[in-house]
Amino acid sequence: MIKKAEVLAKKLGLTFNQPHLFKTALTHRSVGAHNNERLEYLGDSILGFVVAEKLYIQFPNAGEGVLSRLRASLVNQSSLAELARQHNIGDYLILGSGELKSGGFRRDSILSDALEAIMGALLLDQGVEVCRQWILALFADKLADIKLDSWNKDPKTRLQELLQARKKALPVYELVAMSGADHAQTFEVKCSVVICPQATSGIGISRKKAEQVAAENMLILLEDQD
Amino acid sequence: MIKKAEVLAKKLGLTFNQPHLFKTALTHRSVGAHNNERLEYLGDSILGFVVAEKLYIQFPNAGEGVLSRLRASLVNQSSLAELARQHNIGDYLILGSGELKSGGFRRDSILSDALEAIMGALLLDQGVEVCRQWILALFADKLADIKLDSWNKDPKTRLQELLQARKKALPVYELVAMSGADHAQTFEVKCSVVICPQATSGIGISRKKAEQVAAENMLILLEDQD
Repeated sequence: MIKKAEVLAKKLGLTFNQPHLFKTALTHRSVGAHNNERLEYLGDSILGFVVAEKLYIQFPNAGEGVLSRLRASLVNQSSLAELARQHNIGDYLILGSGELKSGGFRRDSILSDALEAIMGALLLDQGVEVCRQWILALFADKLADIKLDSWNKDPKTRLQELLQARKKALPVYELVAMSGADHAQTFEVKCSVVICPQATSGIGISRKKAEQVAAENMLILLEDQD
Repeated sequence: MIKKAEVLAKKLGLTFNQPHLFKTALTHRSVGAHNNERLEYLGDSILGFVVAEKLYIQFPNAGEGVLSRLRASLVNQSSLAELARQHNIGDYLILGSGELKSGGFRRDSILSDALEAIMGALLLDQGVEVCRQWILALFADKLADIKLDSWNKDPKTRLQELLQARKKALPVYELVAMSGADHAQTFEVKCSVVICPQATSGIGISRKKAEQVAAENMLILLEDQD
């Protein structure tokens, strides 16, 4: 296994002083207690920081809300899984027999966790600066592709585009309640999407405004989920 | 204003090469477009990383779930506001007249944001390592106080303790649905707390188990919210 891991490390441009850290990063929890979950937790935190800092510098005029949304669009399970696939990380994962049979090496969550765990292993092995540079190189294309314009779109449009990008069904908005007299009505709308078990709600002075609030709340929920 | 900020910087053990960064960190958005929101975003990211890494090292046997919960217990609005109060940061905030009148310098969210913004300013001014050391010194007492035992408590107990610590009403559990035959019933329970606009639900093979799941989901929601 160590040898196989070495091949991947080389492909990723990494040389580990402590190769066991890299091997652990590739080891899914289905194998047993010694797995990549702690390294994934660590990698997630350095990744969040590095991308946040990079976006701060790259977009000196973007507000905090746009920066947070940009970060969530780069650092999420499907984006990380995509990067993991580009580097064929799935071929090198160490999985328990159940996960092996059910094709765990292809699953977004497992790929994404492994990539974050690799970042955690690199951080422990070579410190913040080396880890930062490797993460930035990994995300270079995605960072270069950001078009700030699209980040000023309204929440319903953003939610729709997010679901389309993931090839999922469009959000469903339902009017839950209307209250108040004719000239001062308020509307409550529920927003549901297939990728989130929870619905969100929004209240507004028109049905459309309530939908925008519900969509914004759903975007926040989905960002937290990633 | 610069002079006042210098007094605080000195109290915090900080010397800024670019004092305008520190002044910006103290400037609430009620003042105008040039405020601490971007620095807060940056500070939040380095804070998350530094605390995550520290906990990883301090608790070599803690699982990822415990580490995540520990981090959320240290890095949240009320914990940060408490630290800000210990250092009298409220006295040095630069607020718009409306916020000044309504006592914004005492508000948790404003204090917490300012403290994170100070971390962001320090990161820009002196880099990761200085910032990391300052954050660790700031959290030293809280880090030393962690008793790992309490983190193995069940979700309902943890949720109750979290609300008690914030002096809030206890969670409300409601049975929403029961289904299945007598020997294989499932229960669905809804959990609501006053500090979260959303309820969570849990399904289990007993009412108690469903409540635990709902409580766990609420804890996750609250952690994301902080």
